[in-house]
Amino acid sequence: MIKTCIIGASGYTGAELAALVHGHDQFELAALFVSANSADAGKSLGDIHPQFFNRIELPLQPIDEANLCALAESFDLIFLATPHEASHKWMKQLCSEKSANKAVIMDLSGAFRIKDKHKFAEYYGFEHHADKLLAAAVYGLADWHQEQIKNADLIAIPGCYPTASLTALKPLQQNALIDTAHFPIINAVSGVTGAGRKAALNSSFSEVSLQAYSVLGHRHQPEIIDYLGTDVIFTPHLGNFKRGILATITVKTSANVTERQITEAYQQAYQDNPIVRFRNSWPKIDDVVGTPYCDLFWKLDNKTGYLVVTSAIDNLLKGAASQAMQCANLRFGFETHAGLVN
Amino acid sequence: MIKTCIIGASGYTGAELAALVHGHDQFELAALFVSANSADAGKSLGDIHPQFFNRIELPLQPIDEANLCALAESFDLIFLATPHEASHKWMKQLCSEKSANKAVIMDLSGAFRIKDKHKFAEYYGFEHHADKLLAAAVYGLADWHQEQIKNADLIAIPGCYPTASLTALKPLQQNALIDTAHFPIINAVSGVTGAGRKAALNSSFSEVSLQAYSVLGHRHQPEIIDYLGTDVIFTPHLGNFKRGILATITVKTSANVTERQITEAYQQAYQDNPIVRFRNSWPKIDDVVGTPYCDLFWKLDNKTGYLVVTSAIDNLLKGAASQAMQCANLRFGFETHAGLVN
Amino acid sequence: MIKTCIIGASGYTGAELAALVHGHDQFELAALFVSANSADAGKSLGDIHPQFFNRIELPLQPIDEANLCALAESFDLIFLATPHEASHKWMKQLCSEKSANKAVIMDLSGAFRIKDKHKFAEYYGFEHHADKLLAAAVYGLADWHQEQIKNADLIAIPGCYPTASLTALKPLQQNALIDTAHFPIINAVSGVTGAGRKAALNSSFSEVSLQAYSVLGHRHQPEIIDYLGTDVIFTPHLGNFKRGILATITVKTSANVTERQITEAYQQAYQDNPIVRFRNSWPKIDDVVGTPYCDLFWKLDNKTGYLVVTSAIDNLLKGAASQAMQCANLRFGFETHAGLVN
Amino acid sequence: MIKTCIIGASGYTGAELAALVHGHDQFELAALFVSANSADAGKSLGDIHPQFFNRIELPLQPIDEANLCALAESFDLIFLATPHEASHKWMKQLCSEKSANKAVIMDLSGAFRIKDKHKFAEYYGFEHHADKLLAAAVYGLADWHQEQIKNADLIAIPGCYPTASLTALKPLQQNALIDTAHFPIINAVSGVTGAGRKAALNSSFSEVSLQAYSVLGHRHQPEIIDYLGTDVIFTPHLGNFKRGILATITVKTSANVTERQITEAYQQAYQDNPIVRFRNSWPKIDDVVGTPYCDLFWKLDNKTGYLVVTSAIDNLLKGAASQAMQCANLRFGFETHAGLVN
Repeated sequence: MIKTCIIGASGYTGAELAALVHGHDQFELAALFVSANSADAGKSLGDIHPQFFNRIELPLQPIDEANLCALAESFDLIFLATPHEASHKWMKQLCSEKSANKAVIMDLSGAFRIKDKHKFAEYYGFEHHADKLLAAAVYGLADWHQEQIKNADLIAIPGCYPTASLTALKPLQQNALIDTAHFPIINAVSGVTGAGRKAALNSSFSEVSLQAYSVLGHRHQPEIIDYLGTDVIFTPHLGNFKRGILATITVKTSANVTERQITEAYQQAYQDNPIVRFRNSWPKIDDVVGTPYCDLFWKLDNKTGYLVVTSAIDNLLKGAASQAMQCANLRFGFETHAGLVN
Repeated sequence: MIKTCIIGASGYTGAELAALVHGHDQFELAALFVSANSADAGKSLGDIHPQFFNRIELPLQPIDEANLCALAESFDLIFLATPHEASHKWMKQLCSEKSANKAVIMDLSGAFRIKDKHKFAEYYGFEHHADKLLAAAVYGLADWHQEQIKNADLIAIPGCYPTASLTALKPLQQNALIDTAHFPIINAVSGVTGAGRKAALNSSFSEVSLQAYSVLGHRHQPEIIDYLGTDVIFTPHLGNFKRGILATITVKTSANVTERQITEAYQQAYQDNPIVRFRNSWPKIDDVVGTPYCDLFWKLDNKTGYLVVTSAIDNLLKGAASQAMQCANLRFGFETHAGLVN
Repeated sequence: MIKTCIIGASGYTGAELAALVHGHDQFELAALFVSANSADAGKSLGDIHPQFFNRIELPLQPIDEANLCALAESFDLIFLATPHEASHKWMKQLCSEKSANKAVIMDLSGAFRIKDKHKFAEYYGFEHHADKLLAAAVYGLADWHQEQIKNADLIAIPGCYPTASLTALKPLQQNALIDTAHFPIINAVSGVTGAGRKAALNSSFSEVSLQAYSVLGHRHQPEIIDYLGTDVIFTPHLGNFKRGILATITVKTSANVTERQITEAYQQAYQDNPIVRFRNSWPKIDDVVGTPYCDLFWKLDNKTGYLVVTSAIDNLLKGAASQAMQCANLRFGFETHAGLVN
Repeated sequence: MIKTCIIGASGYTGAELAALVHGHDQFELAALFVSANSADAGKSLGDIHPQFFNRIELPLQPIDEANLCALAESFDLIFLATPHEASHKWMKQLCSEKSANKAVIMDLSGAFRIKDKHKFAEYYGFEHHADKLLAAAVYGLADWHQEQIKNADLIAIPGCYPTASLTALKPLQQNALIDTAHFPIINAVSGVTGAGRKAALNSSFSEVSLQAYSVLGHRHQPEIIDYLGTDVIFTPHLGNFKRGILATITVKTSANVTERQITEAYQQAYQDNPIVRFRNSWPKIDDVVGTPYCDLFWKLDNKTGYLVVTSAIDNLLKGAASQAMQCANLRFGFETHAGLVN
């Protein structure tokens, strides 16, 4: 059994991770931690996330920031479901080379996703000072970077929007099917859990209503561009639902691209992948909520060469916790979908 | 024109009041105020409530607590859409007998609704120190207390749940149709705007899901009991919608009460009332949202003598702003529904 | 492996059953059937319920009404997730004594729930003609009738509202804690899936809004009364959510009943029951959606003797499919929660 | 007073029209009609749309298809809120030149919106046989075609999506700010009322969840292209809300276009227009629901030349009924926003 803990288990992603680890044959959910100054410290998981009441009743222990090395020595696997700056601050201790740290780290924050450290000031609001770790971190896009993930000790789990976007776009880009002179246009709508578990006026029930936000400046745009290898325009929206992301992507295809080439590109990428599903109709958000799937459907307009692809995921699962679990499976030698699909 | 201002116009109720006054032929929306330490001070109404953008662009002026008398001298009518304690604290200045204060005050908080000042500590969390004003305040149940309202200078607008409940129960109680040995059971579900415009985890979109709260201890229970004149059990619920209240009320009727007696009691109470509607089917929340109506429908079980009545209102209108407007109409000599129904 | 089929797998309950059987170690999901004249006949489960796309891809076979005996001979266990009249019509063949029928039948319709056959005309709109089967059927209230369920061949799975209501009320009734001169008042709100998977104006998205319905005449009222053993007033409501039921129950307790007696009654009933959870706060619908739990929380008003209990379930799981699975577990010798809670 | 009737008043758009005409000083709501074989014939408006119960209690009269001329002779203004084929079929009688028909017709269906009659077979599923009327019909884009509308007798009210799209795009196109080698990409999400008031599985509450539909083939795409004068890619989505449309439009601007040029284009188009609002933040659906406004906000990415504009309307008002009322105001000599904004 892989001895596992979760730091940041009071949030929505942390709770989903707890459920996945708890339900997995090969991983042991050994401890849950929260920031020492969290109001949730000392409570049990079921107090905060009542769907787990009486089922996963581990306490949320306050983390000892001064002694994170001890954690990295005690556990085989640590999930960080923490704010970006907390991950950035704590990672040096967790990954110290001087100690006997052995834990594999899966960071679900954005602190180690993009490689250009200068972009952190612009998009994340803090200066990045962990050059070596940033260079070492592997981007955990689980359906693409499997060999690197298998050998990594620090894995930066992709953001929710990049996961939905890259799953749809990478097969096209890899096969040179995109006319990149026309940027792919990604319009995506996310459920409100994407904003995290917190009190905020703009995620108040009374205020939420479909709306674009962070237009032309969202931090997931450089992440998508980095791992796609070409420019895109990404416009996120907040939707009036709790979970899920639907990304609608419009692409100008290269000259003379056929429906068949597109289908083959997708098949080649995901032929035997149990997580990416080629649907036979346009996916709905609710088709994937509570599942680890990424559902794809597409249509090419032969007259104009424009292609529309939609991609649907559960933002907390494929967009966070279940993709992290895919990475953990890969890293520890199990099938990518173990514990996720039966 | 009745020169009118609203204190607390940044909240949902205040905004509805602004729209009603703005649209009324006989009232002039002369000024909007918010607490001086509100983050909204200085903004315009349309910035905060964009449905009024470019339409009601009055600024939200910071109120000068030290000089409330000046307000009461300058305006004919002041609506207080303020927290309970703010109303309690400010009322003495607003209603000072020593000055030339002339404004009629409509208080939409709970600070002057119940007559027993000792209940404020228990239900509202503060000690009430304004005995004289509490005694003078008229309870603005607009379909019942019309004569008192016409002559009052301080009118305490009823709570949203009491409005829905009393409209349904008072005709029965007045006609001795209730077997009061069995307490009427009021189950009501309110939209989230009832919690006010604020950041709070339990009104976050991701957290809201139908749930009972404040069971057997909600502050509207004593208010209902006071103005009904008999005990009730009142159980409020938070629903996953923005606006509206549906109250489902179960009453054991007195011996041998007939359907006809019930119908007559309701007709007698609301015969020509343009605001209370006798529906021919069970009302939905959305039938009344955005309207000043209280919709009623009922059914008597002849075998057992139990009667079920449901009562639907918009919590921000009939449960607050439009009932306040009914009171203002009555107080200044207009028809009760002027500016509300055309 | 218990060879299992589901008749009526195109509906919401049937799909949930398919998922539970598919995920259970001891049961084999061998076949899915739908009515021969269903537009869904010949499609796969994943076409209709895309959350199961690529995962449970069994075809929905048209059922041969003329030869139901063959089904009952081929399977160990048959779930009927069919309309009331279809269950009533088909049951004689499925349970024929003359053939070698061996299948245990779990009927999720209402056709065999209540014992007084005369009530079917009144509440279900058809005459009941299967006296012997009606007498033989065991009511599958899984947390209460375990011994009978273990030995039954025809099990009538309770309705969703009765499950939520009886779980809350039976411990009180069994311990004589209810002053039955005052009928318990049950107000419950159900998600729209309770109306089944079908086109209907009143379950159209544009029309749904919280509303009472079937007041004082819903078919679940006699079912609750029968299995509780005392009268109740039951008022159902349609809520603007997909899944879940919240029942708010108000009870006048017998003279001098204490909080402690109530707690003991509940503990005695459900002490080691992994499905009924005693919560420490008022349950929300979303706390139980997607789970097999029934969550309870209660409060007694010592001054008046009124008790409020709320009970939350997923209408498609504890209110249908997972309770049927509990019954199947009991009938075939497994733990009641096998395959439901890990 | 302009004597007005509405044909098709049982639908959502018809009901909104009824409310607008009823509330307008200059128009008289003289009669409501529905198809003779409608189940709603004979009911009153308030039975079907309870928000108007006791307020607009006109009966829904069955229309006499054989004698539509009589209608056109009796009324000054007829709104057709009817299916496309019904409008097409009835229009010849309503607009017959031989009779004394005097009514101005506002058709809210799509039957007279696009000028190329061959597209009706492809996009609407019927052959168009009214060439002369098609040629004569004026497209009622009320903020653009004011002179034509003032003189027209048959006005084809634009579709909901084209209204949102054209309001955002026409100022850019008119000023040659679009690099039309890159098609503008329109992604729009509509509330479920856009599908009409009817029973249908895909608009059932239990089934609705954010989803693209009619991708690359929706009938509003040719309408947008016709009145914009350049190609676009339009992808509609169904959202989980009742009312409203949010269109997110991505445009590659012509070389060297500046933020200032864009602002000037919009100001020039809508400077004193009380219906089109330039917001100072990204509009939400709920900011415009229940209002006649079209809210715009935009941002230019100087580095790449891509511009994102979002446009929000109420699909039943600015996308149908209130735009029809704007046209009626223009046609009968009133201010465009009379009866719509106070």
